[in-house]
Amino acid sequence: MLRSCAARLRALSALPGRAHWPASPPGPALRLFSSEKDTLRDYSLPNPSWNKDIRLLFDQFMKKCEDGSWKRLPSYRHSVFEIERDPKAQMFTRSLEEGMGFEYVLFHNDTEKRMVCLLQAGPHLQGNHGYVHGGAIATMIDMTAGSCVFVTGGFVMTANMNIDYRRPIPLYSVVVINSRIDKIEGRKYFVSCDIRSVDNKTLYTEATLLFVKPDPNKSSK
Amino acid sequence: MLRSCAARLRALSALPGRAHWPASPPGPALRLFSSEKDTLRDYSLPNPSWNKDIRLLFDQFMKKCEDGSWKRLPSYRHSVFEIERDPKAQMFTRSLEEGMGFEYVLFHNDTEKRMVCLLQAGPHLQGNHGYVHGGAIATMIDMTAGSCVFVTGGFVMTANMNIDYRRPIPLYSVVVINSRIDKIEGRKYFVSCDIRSVDNKTLYTEATLLFVKPDPNKSSK
Repeated sequence: MLRSCAARLRALSALPGRAHWPASPPGPALRLFSSEKDTLRDYSLPNPSWNKDIRLLFDQFMKKCEDGSWKRLPSYRHSVFEIERDPKAQMFTRSLEEGMGFEYVLFHNDTEKRMVCLLQAGPHLQGNHGYVHGGAIATMIDMTAGSCVFVTGGFVMTANMNIDYRRPIPLYSVVVINSRIDKIEGRKYFVSCDIRSVDNKTLYTEATLLFVKPDPNKSSK
Repeated sequence: MLRSCAARLRALSALPGRAHWPASPPGPALRLFSSEKDTLRDYSLPNPSWNKDIRLLFDQFMKKCEDGSWKRLPSYRHSVFEIERDPKAQMFTRSLEEGMGFEYVLFHNDTEKRMVCLLQAGPHLQGNHGYVHGGAIATMIDMTAGSCVFVTGGFVMTANMNIDYRRPIPLYSVVVINSRIDKIEGRKYFVSCDIRSVDNKTLYTEATLLFVKPDPNKSSK
């Protein structure tokens, strides 16, 4: 899907080379939404539902951010840029209640073209009893890899996603999603992704993805 | 992921060859959940959020059910069979509010080994502005194809899912997800799936999936 979400534009406003994007939302847009608090909230910061595993990893990555090699990406539920759009629409990955769905934070390393997502999987992501739904896993892979490309290449569309499910991921567990751009050919971005346990000993999922920048001579639809 | 969810067990209780599964949940299990009404609700029936496109298709498929060639699968948010499990857990595809997320119904044709899902995509499934998130699409592909195999083969795990995204799916639109078992080799089920517009003129997505029945000599984990 097109990676043109304004939430990402906002999220990336602090990244190198994105200084032309405003760091805070314009005032008039806020009036579109029912809850200013909700609109302004950065969902990638710790909340009471986060367990010690994700808090520990979060602290470790925040430490890595101190020398500028890594950047944390803020994350919002609503768009605040495209003020003409549907106010009911919400980013799918932020549409579940706190602690019930995707609790996550993204960290980007520009030099290594890597994006890491720390994910705590809530109980509303269930597929098989006690395990995360394969579609929820696919969602986080698409989001993490797509964000990785977006930071480098701007708007892209997911053209292909090929996932090998190695082991089921238990509900409530924290996992680390690693994504890296392997190759760029013209408008095509080839990305690999894997999901591992916090101790790195368990490989849950592997995936490859192809993203394509829209042809500027054609409609994005 | 393992397709062993009790919601599916319940859903499939009326299907041929599944008569040994009770058609209604056992009494004691209901006490585990906060809302009996919620626990008992069949989410695959029309509700006020359904638009005319999905209602029309629903009626057409219900007509096809009259001669027994097609069966509608009921669908629940919670498990009611595995009473020892986590009462907070919810089926991912039923975890969003009415009309906001996945509004869908599954129909199965046993002779043709086909499963059709009618999906109305709510505004909380957003990826790119105005379009359904690639992960939400993957979720419905995994669910539809997995259910198709489950009806035939029982518990299976998604081993691979390979998706080609052809065109973005607009939020609020109704699409038809077609899934079919192409081949069975031992414990392996090869399934194809596509997503098309209601008028069948637009191909949005194509996918192939491999499901594997757990080796009875090994743990399902």
